[in-house]
Amino acid sequence: MAVSTERADEVRFDLSTFLDTKRNSIASALNDAIVVQRPASIYESMRYSVFAESSRVCPLLCISACELVGGSQDQAMPMACALEMVHTASFIHDDLPCMDDDELRRGKAANHKVFGEDLAILAGDALYALGVEYVASNSKDICPDTLLRVIAELGKAVGSEGMVAGQYLELASNESGEELTFEALRDIHLRKTAAYAECSTVCGAILGGADEEQIQSLRQYGRALGLLYEVVEDMAEQSGKNKIRTPSSYIKVLGLEKCKEYVKLLRSEAKSYLSGFDTKKAVPLLCFVDQLAERVRDYEAF
Amino acid sequence: MAVSTERADEVRFDLSTFLDTKRNSIASALNDAIVVQRPASIYESMRYSVFAESSRVCPLLCISACELVGGSQDQAMPMACALEMVHTASFIHDDLPCMDDDELRRGKAANHKVFGEDLAILAGDALYALGVEYVASNSKDICPDTLLRVIAELGKAVGSEGMVAGQYLELASNESGEELTFEALRDIHLRKTAAYAECSTVCGAILGGADEEQIQSLRQYGRALGLLYEVVEDMAEQSGKNKIRTPSSYIKVLGLEKCKEYVKLLRSEAKSYLSGFDTKKAVPLLCFVDQLAERVRDYEAF
Repeated sequence: MAVSTERADEVRFDLSTFLDTKRNSIASALNDAIVVQRPASIYESMRYSVFAESSRVCPLLCISACELVGGSQDQAMPMACALEMVHTASFIHDDLPCMDDDELRRGKAANHKVFGEDLAILAGDALYALGVEYVASNSKDICPDTLLRVIAELGKAVGSEGMVAGQYLELASNESGEELTFEALRDIHLRKTAAYAECSTVCGAILGGADEEQIQSLRQYGRALGLLYEVVEDMAEQSGKNKIRTPSSYIKVLGLEKCKEYVKLLRSEAKSYLSGFDTKKAVPLLCFVDQLAERVRDYEAF
Repeated sequence: MAVSTERADEVRFDLSTFLDTKRNSIASALNDAIVVQRPASIYESMRYSVFAESSRVCPLLCISACELVGGSQDQAMPMACALEMVHTASFIHDDLPCMDDDELRRGKAANHKVFGEDLAILAGDALYALGVEYVASNSKDICPDTLLRVIAELGKAVGSEGMVAGQYLELASNESGEELTFEALRDIHLRKTAAYAECSTVCGAILGGADEEQIQSLRQYGRALGLLYEVVEDMAEQSGKNKIRTPSSYIKVLGLEKCKEYVKLLRSEAKSYLSGFDTKKAVPLLCFVDQLAERVRDYEAF
């Protein structure tokens, strides 16, 4: 199915075929990266979650940003795999009973429901370790300085300034039961989803040889896309299409009408950061924004 | 207190002063590396465990190996800090109720007893992420290729081939209640303590500019030292000085007499791997072996 974009007159782009092709390559690379060894249970636990249904959005952002600035899929692939492994690790830990206590993830039982909490924690730890090792050891045609930079970006996005902080703030707000302000809610998402989308895009750009101005634009693109994702998810919950995740949501904080405006704003903002790039090459990243924003139409006439 | 070594006639070395000085430098570097930011609770949880009583054995091995091959403490320090952070992260996760269910660690309450399980898991994740980021971003006078190599060594030692595998095998053996064979017990320790002592020593050697032969010798030294540590710990438990950790121990598997022989063998083996190095420079690493092996005297006339 060809998905039209706002620039459909200028460029015909078959997003669906693009995504299928890329996702197959990513799955194949992940399959090669996580080879079952002894003790097999750890690898089975790791593979169970990595090969669950996934949009592979982080690897897709990484590869697309790399190709946008003139790099190749091969240059970005080890990092793309690492991003998926580390993202999966964070899901596995977040789903634990002492955290979000989620029983389902990516269309099947959460890791700890199948492998037990101990193995779930260990599988998460192992995926993070393997992700970092894989980028450091398996990247080809990338200068070592560049690899160190993406490894540092990954650490920052995942750690106490990024996803860990976002998860903690979310847990603390759920526990307190207090309604968050817009700024507090945005801060959580800036540290979680937005930081990781930003990291995925920026790492692809760095690996593809982007200049600092391009990196900065793609950083802002990734951040806006991550925020957009969270607002759209909240609207999906409101419509009853998704399960309710947290007591606080943009719908509660802003109201439905302002949420719609916020989606429009983020959509336009995210795309504006791509204006300095070659239009044809930027189409995948533009399509990601449109496809996400258009999901809102399923929930409410927009 | 001057601790004499078997080579005391040749070299006088004040191990106690050496350890105090190095430990102060390591604590100061760790203090600079883990700066409290918002949300403070995460950093407090990280710092609580990192600044608990610790022998700092991994950073000490790293710095000593680096200096042995002609490198400087400054060159090894970011990696030394990362090793301590990641080691601490593994303790925090291992102590959780669903794993070893330990209430005490390093002379005080386990992290999750103070901060809760959720924050303990997150602090562990954050320490691993920070450790990797810190080496990648803060190492000075080290060529980027070398840094990638130590980052990969760290990932391998911590992940599904190393500490994670060892922890899993130990949990599985505790659960089954079956007595392990000597080989199975050794396999667990090779993946846990020995892999990490090996990684600490090897990373120091790589950072200090060691050649491949030196790296190989120090790899074997670290491995032997790690195994030695585990046998000595088992003897301490047997003597009632330490709490019993696991149903399987070298004492049960080998008997006390063979354990003593094994300690002697590992002591001599570990030291033999240092024979190709400058005697004076090798003294700290030699002393670590002797000091550890001599702990056995406290438990049983040896």
